[in-house]
Order: sequence, then C-alpha cells, then structure tokens
Amino acid sequence: MSLVIVGSVAFDTVETPFGRRERIVGGSGTYCSLAASYFTRPRVVGVVGRDFPRKAIDLLESRKVDLRGLKTKSGKTFHWEGRYGKDPNLRTTVRTELNVFKDFRPDIPAAYRNADIVYLANIDPDGHEPILRQFRKPKAVAMDTIRFWIETKREALIRELGRVHVYFANDEEARLLTGELNLVAAGRALVAYGPSLVVLKKGEHGALVFGRDFIFGVLAHPSAHVVDPTGAGDSFAGGFLGYLDQAGSFARREVRRAAVYGSVLASYAIEDFGVDRFRSLDCAAIESRYRDFKRLISF
Amino acid sequence: MSLVIVGSVAFDTVETPFGRRERIVGGSGTYCSLAASYFTRPRVVGVVGRDFPRKAIDLLESRKVDLRGLKTKSGKTFHWEGRYGKDPNLRTTVRTELNVFKDFRPDIPAAYRNADIVYLANIDPDGHEPILRQFRKPKAVAMDTIRFWIETKREALIRELGRVHVYFANDEEARLLTGELNLVAAGRALVAYGPSLVVLKKGEHGALVFGRDFIFGVLAHPSAHVVDPTGAGDSFAGGFLGYLDQAGSFARREVRRAAVYGSVLASYAIEDFGVDRFRSLDCAAIESRYRDFKRLISF
Repeated sequence: MSLVIVGSVAFDTVETPFGRRERIVGGSGTYCSLAASYFTRPRVVGVVGRDFPRKAIDLLESRKVDLRGLKTKSGKTFHWEGRYGKDPNLRTTVRTELNVFKDFRPDIPAAYRNADIVYLANIDPDGHEPILRQFRKPKAVAMDTIRFWIETKREALIRELGRVHVYFANDEEARLLTGELNLVAAGRALVAYGPSLVVLKKGEHGALVFGRDFIFGVLAHPSAHVVDPTGAGDSFAGGFLGYLDQAGSFARREVRRAAVYGSVLASYAIEDFGVDRFRSLDCAAIESRYRDFKRLISF
Repeated sequence: MSLVIVGSVAFDTVETPFGRRERIVGGSGTYCSLAASYFTRPRVVGVVGRDFPRKAIDLLESRKVDLRGLKTKSGKTFHWEGRYGKDPNLRTTVRTELNVFKDFRPDIPAAYRNADIVYLANIDPDGHEPILRQFRKPKAVAMDTIRFWIETKREALIRELGRVHVYFANDEEARLLTGELNLVAAGRALVAYGPSLVVLKKGEHGALVFGRDFIFGVLAHPSAHVVDPTGAGDSFAGGFLGYLDQAGSFARREVRRAAVYGSVLASYAIEDFGVDRFRSLDCAAIESRYRDFKRLISF
C-alpha cells in the first residue's frame, strides 16, 4: 500500500524541565513521517521556507521518506514555540508564526494520487476537500485536529468527521468536541460522528481505540523521564498508520497491533528533544519495546 | 490462607450526578470484605454503633464474611458524607462524623491471630503497631492511606511503609507522598520506602503495580456510566487480596491476576450506589468481566 502524510514541517522552540532548544526541526508531518518510516515509505506533502536546513532534509532522506511533495517557498518556515512545566500533558504555546504555512494549498504530486491511506495532520477542516479531491480513491482517510479548530470551526470539523475513516484525538480534544467528560462516552460519541476508528490518546495513560463494535486499550510505556513531549501524538499516528500501510489490512487484529506500534513510537519520540531520538532509533529497538508492551500487560 | 481486614464499617451519604442516597452502608472494611468474599472467607475487624442495621449484617453474612471481629458499641456508627460532580475522580467531603470509630482500638479475636494476610484499611499509622503485634506472623501486611494521614502524619506513614509488603495508593496520594508528578517515578519511589508491591490506582485509567524488578499495568474496565465511585479503591484492594489469599501465593503471575480481579471488582462496585451492586453480583459475572479485560488489551 502507500501512505501520504499532509502536514506541517516546521521549526520548534521548546522549553521543558530538561532544557531549552531553539529552532529545532519539528512539525506534524516530520514526526509522523519519521515514525511511519519504520514500516513503510511515507510520502510527505508540506511546505518549508528557504531557511529550512539541509541537515533536516538529510535526516528525512536517510529514513527513506519520500519528499517529492515537500515544496520550498521563498519566506520563512513555520515556527512554533512552546513551554512544558513539570506536567508533560500541559503545554503553553508562547508563539505561532505560520509564515509559508499560512497559504498552504497543497498540490498533490501525480505520483502520490493513488495513495491507499491519506493522513491530514492538523489541517484546517475547510482545507480537506481541495486536498482530498486530488486523490483517486484512498482506502482510508485519517485526520487529527487541535483545540484551535474545535473552537473556531466546530461545524466544519464535525462535517469532516463524517467522511474520514480514522480520527485521532487526545483526551482534551475528545471532551471539548463531544461535551462528554467520561472518555468512553466521548469515544463512542466520536464514532457516532462517522469515523470507523477513533483513536483516543491519553498521554501517560495510553490510548483507547473505538470501533463500531469493539474497543481496544493500550497502556503507555511506563517512562519515568519525559524529556520533550512534543510530537508524541504525531509519532503515534505515524506508527499506527505506517504499520497499517505495511500490513495492507484494517482487520481488527492489525488495528490492535497498529495501536501498540503507535504507542511504541510515541514513547521513543519523547525520550529526547525534537526528532533527535529518531537519529539512532532502529527497528530492533521498536520490536524490543513492542515485546515490553506485551510483558507489561500480560496476565 | 486467611485474610483479615481491619477497617471502617460505616454509613455513607453520597450525592452523584445519578442521585442522592442518605445513610447507606459503606466503609472501607465493608467494601473490601464484600469484594474479597468472591475468593476467600474474609475476616473483618471493625466497630459499629447500635444504629447499624441488621439488613447490612445480613448482606455481609450472606456473602460468608466472618464478622466475629465486628464489635457493636453504644453510640452512633461512623458517618461520612461526600459529593461527586461530573468528574468521578474528584470528590468533596461534606462531613465526617467518626462516632464510635473515633476510639477504635481493635482487639483481634484469637481465631484471627494466625492470619496470613492482614489488611489495614486506612488506619491511623500510629495505630498499626498495636494491631499488628496481636498477629502471630502474617505472610503479608497490606495498607492504604488517605490524604489526611499524608498531610498530618507523614513521617509515621513513611515509617509504616518500611514494614508492610503491599501498599495501595491512588495517583493523588502517590504524588503527594513522593513529590513526584510522574506516576512511574512516584511508584518506584514508593517501592524504595519498603513495600515489595505498590499498587497505584488511577481511577478510569486503571492501575500500575510496581515490584522490586517488574511493573504490571492494568486498564480500567471501559465504563461509560459511573453511578457512585465510593468504595472503588477498597473493592480493588478486596479483589486483589482476596484473590491472592485464595491463590496462596505471591508469585508474580498471581499478582498480575490479582490486579485484574481488583479492577474487575472495582468496576462492578461503581455501577450502583453504595454496596448495592454486590447484592446481585456472582462469580460468573466476575469471570466474564475478567475475560473482557483480556479481550480489551490483547494484541
């Protein structure tokens, strides 16, 4: 199969209890494609400015990420700055400079248009249609969102949930969108909006996957030190969709495994600043932690 | 083996989004012994006033709970009143009338003194010693605590952790006692205080069990409706210790199963007000949900 990821490729400035890093490489498309690259050859659609460093491109290429859909425009790359306190689940956005990402109207390369899985990583819900109509007939469309779109484009977002197959949300987003405090009720309400799979991410508490008639729970890897939580959700999505793309099936058994691989990739991403952990991460480490997940919950 | 539970037998007045119940039967000893009764014949040590109803005694006796250690004193039964909002993890104590529980200095019946497992359910840490010295040589002593003792008798509590084998804490208590926000770090810090097993309960997110050199995670049963969260923690402890008492072993495999049974019992307890769910709960329902837990997490 083939997976196309439409998302941001960006600079992040982050401050966590472990330190501060200025203008390191980040973005939903970056994390997601790096995580997916352990299972498939993801194709990225995004835009960067002329200030985007060759070194970052090298990392993506070394992981065999297909970058034909990544355009360089005159101007500056999207820059997000955020700060985490002691609680890695709470973050403060200090600034968001959209720069070249502001007018992101992606042209999907001809070679990408027969994608089996299309992932819209935090795209303006009103921007979905112009992107999706460029694809032939994907087997699955996946999306996530952020608080900003829930608060400003709620109706458009709910409309889009009616046509995607997979929706990734974190606990805060699920509660905000459904008005349900109980996460099981929230997950079921989200499935009722349309997606056949809702992946509800709960940070240190793991994730729940809701289908039409099943529910699957995965714990988070028990990490005592979270160096930089940025990109955990995008890495989860990348591991999840990358595995499904490799498996070539959305059978329930594969969905369960995909959720565990998503957790594995997220657990590694947060062990170092930005995408640094991906520089040394190999498939053996991923398989080893997959087995750890099995041991953690076996009874 | 045999299990002795030292704890409160009480009246609770609770208000939840599902309604209000006045002076229904509750107390840590009550919930814990009812939950344990599906695995073993628990022995209760506690005190009630002359106002305690025969009907409640009948329920405990119908579950074959050994009540030789439950004393009736002139005066009124311990009465706690609390309120839950939409979030079942947050509760407000409206009042606590200790009544006959105030001067609870238990005499352990001779027939109980050879207990294999002794559970001190929320006992003043300075009251542990006079209780424990009445037992011959328990294989395991278990305890839990509440915020009140952490705030007022921190040092005594840490001293007691040095001599118990099993410590049950919820996430808030674990963080408060260790100063660690990260629950994995908190669980490890608690093991370092002495207990060979620390059971860290996380409400709707399940529980983590920390041992000297292993960690086990169990999810909560995905309940969309929590009618009354009172007693969930005590029911967990009862299911956990009751199962271990029946198993006759603290082998790691049994500890894992015990944690799942603890979750099963807690998940049933919160489905109705007070101890009402125990009136109809049978072993077949417990085994059925145990299998549900396996399905929930299998991959």
